[in-house]
Amino acid sequence: MKQTQFSSGFTLGILGGGQLGKMMLYTTRKWDINTYVMDKDDTAPAFQGCDVYFEGDIMDYESVMEFGEQVDVLTVEIENVNVQALQDLEDKGIAVSPSAKVLNLIRNKARQKSFYLDKSIATAAFEVYSQPNLEHQRNYPFIWKSAEGGYDGKGVKVIRQASDLEDLPQVECIYEDMVDFDLELAVIVARNANGEMKTYPVVEMEFHPEANQVEYVICPARINMDISDRARELALEVSEAYEHVGLLAVEMFLTKSGELLVNEVAPRPHNSGHHTIEGSITDQFEQHVRSVCNLPLGATDSTVASVMVNLVGEEGHTGNVIYDGIEDILAMPGVTPHIYGKKETRPFRKMGHVTIVADDIVAARELAEVVKGKIRVIAE
Amino acid sequence: MKQTQFSSGFTLGILGGGQLGKMMLYTTRKWDINTYVMDKDDTAPAFQGCDVYFEGDIMDYESVMEFGEQVDVLTVEIENVNVQALQDLEDKGIAVSPSAKVLNLIRNKARQKSFYLDKSIATAAFEVYSQPNLEHQRNYPFIWKSAEGGYDGKGVKVIRQASDLEDLPQVECIYEDMVDFDLELAVIVARNANGEMKTYPVVEMEFHPEANQVEYVICPARINMDISDRARELALEVSEAYEHVGLLAVEMFLTKSGELLVNEVAPRPHNSGHHTIEGSITDQFEQHVRSVCNLPLGATDSTVASVMVNLVGEEGHTGNVIYDGIEDILAMPGVTPHIYGKKETRPFRKMGHVTIVADDIVAARELAEVVKGKIRVIAE
Repeated sequence: MKQTQFSSGFTLGILGGGQLGKMMLYTTRKWDINTYVMDKDDTAPAFQGCDVYFEGDIMDYESVMEFGEQVDVLTVEIENVNVQALQDLEDKGIAVSPSAKVLNLIRNKARQKSFYLDKSIATAAFEVYSQPNLEHQRNYPFIWKSAEGGYDGKGVKVIRQASDLEDLPQVECIYEDMVDFDLELAVIVARNANGEMKTYPVVEMEFHPEANQVEYVICPARINMDISDRARELALEVSEAYEHVGLLAVEMFLTKSGELLVNEVAPRPHNSGHHTIEGSITDQFEQHVRSVCNLPLGATDSTVASVMVNLVGEEGHTGNVIYDGIEDILAMPGVTPHIYGKKETRPFRKMGHVTIVADDIVAARELAEVVKGKIRVIAE
Repeated sequence: MKQTQFSSGFTLGILGGGQLGKMMLYTTRKWDINTYVMDKDDTAPAFQGCDVYFEGDIMDYESVMEFGEQVDVLTVEIENVNVQALQDLEDKGIAVSPSAKVLNLIRNKARQKSFYLDKSIATAAFEVYSQPNLEHQRNYPFIWKSAEGGYDGKGVKVIRQASDLEDLPQVECIYEDMVDFDLELAVIVARNANGEMKTYPVVEMEFHPEANQVEYVICPARINMDISDRARELALEVSEAYEHVGLLAVEMFLTKSGELLVNEVAPRPHNSGHHTIEGSITDQFEQHVRSVCNLPLGATDSTVASVMVNLVGEEGHTGNVIYDGIEDILAMPGVTPHIYGKKETRPFRKMGHVTIVADDIVAARELAEVVKGKIRVIAE
């Protein structure tokens, strides 16, 4: 009789104890999959709900090795982990997803972009420099991106003139065409070790007109079926190119001429998939657990239209968090807040998100705007 | 600025650490509501995922008092708790839901039935005896039920002739008309301390033709709108009569003449509402947390049709559990197993459940039968 992953000695390990790890634990609890989590402090959102929590630095080789040797399958909820340790754990026969190879490619934007070029995957034109180069031939404006370490708008700058290059950090970087795009789209692909693959419906990231931050994630994207089909195809192609196991969130631009260009990817559950908890047959966290544990993938169909709004700490507020207005939004039908469990708010810190579901996307999008007007993440 | 229940010092206490408690924790984690659980051993399903787990006997007065004094809101996931302690905690100003009054009425079937009579709530005709009475005037067949302690078919017997009364335990009991029913239905009602009330769609319990056990819970019930409206009305009436705060699952018979008779109630999340996790905007566990914490109630609409199948231990199997065939059902679209996390299976032990969702109830019901044929809860 074959033993399964459920209520058994099988162990899943997760590097990182943030909100993405926490939301994976909803599935491991639902299925009683023995799960270990490692992160460096015991106030991390995923501290509760795992079977064993290890305090340790996920960037430290020895800590990751020691942790990884105790599990059957190792995954991450963040890319900044010790990749050498992952490589060595793979060599010892632990199933590591994402693989060291994929993380190495993804964590460096110069390598990631060059990989797309090699694989003939459409991406914005770019050049790689070991440090900002004043002697370039590129037309203004363009985008400077540091090759490593940038996320959520850090390590990215629009270069409008030569002098904009002067104060940049002296690190490896790329200069990238500024894409004249209509929409930013994202597709989450799941792939298990058997090679089974599924894509979620295409979502649209709607930006705040001034703040240049994603304001709403909208599912389904307000695009036609042809674009949707091409976006899902492209995402499958990217996941296959990486031979990736687990979830891959593929962010892409839809240009004004109707072209799809891959922007960047995340090899794990992603902000662009949070709406799947309420909106889909199988949510992205369950799908990630299924795929890294090499279980059959779940249906990715949506049951309702949904919009996701991030809850970030308000400017001017630092300290013990209060979710001002949360009772108002709880009274609105189809509105579900998620509170990550960080006790302290800071300006722009990701503290939670809200999913809004409705029969159609117009209604959901309207309701999302009302929600955004009612809830504020402030300090006591 | 008003502090809320979220990421704050507010504390919810749950008496009982079984699967119902475990599934409430999905919501308390989602909202970072500080939650304490008490039960008598540390292998209980709700051991993980709460903020603090207390080992203690929920039937013991002192233990419940000590636990209850540390929380703001106290609820239960099982009726068998020390009710005197709940009463005394209420008197000390703790918000206790269900109240001691409701638990006292419900836990004794003679009192529960008499309550319906007092409140003019339709229920099957019955008599109360302090012990089985051989000198009764009632026509055969009828049902004997012990007033206390019976559940899941225990403490219930069909009496077809006088001699069937002979071996019964000498405890308080009722003799109840055997109802000639078409269907067994259930409606879950939520009510918060503000008096806000909502009902879930009516579900139908389909019984195994021979085993006389609920085999499928079907949502929506295959009944017409008139019956559905009346069933939801009746459930509201029952919840109001009890002045209950929290969820109340109201089980009822639909007689062959079209009458609805209340059978019994459970003042907490219930097996007849498990399908709401996948099938509804707001699942029953979240709704229970909302109602006992006096938050606004969530929408109870279904987004899909759903069927729930219990996973019980197979006869002849005792020991470390294996979910034989679970990978087969995971490969079926819209099928979600829930594994409660009990390491040992025993014949008929509730080990989990499976929810099957589909666009319509005919498809979901068919798929449920396939699921039931594929998965078996056996021992290593």
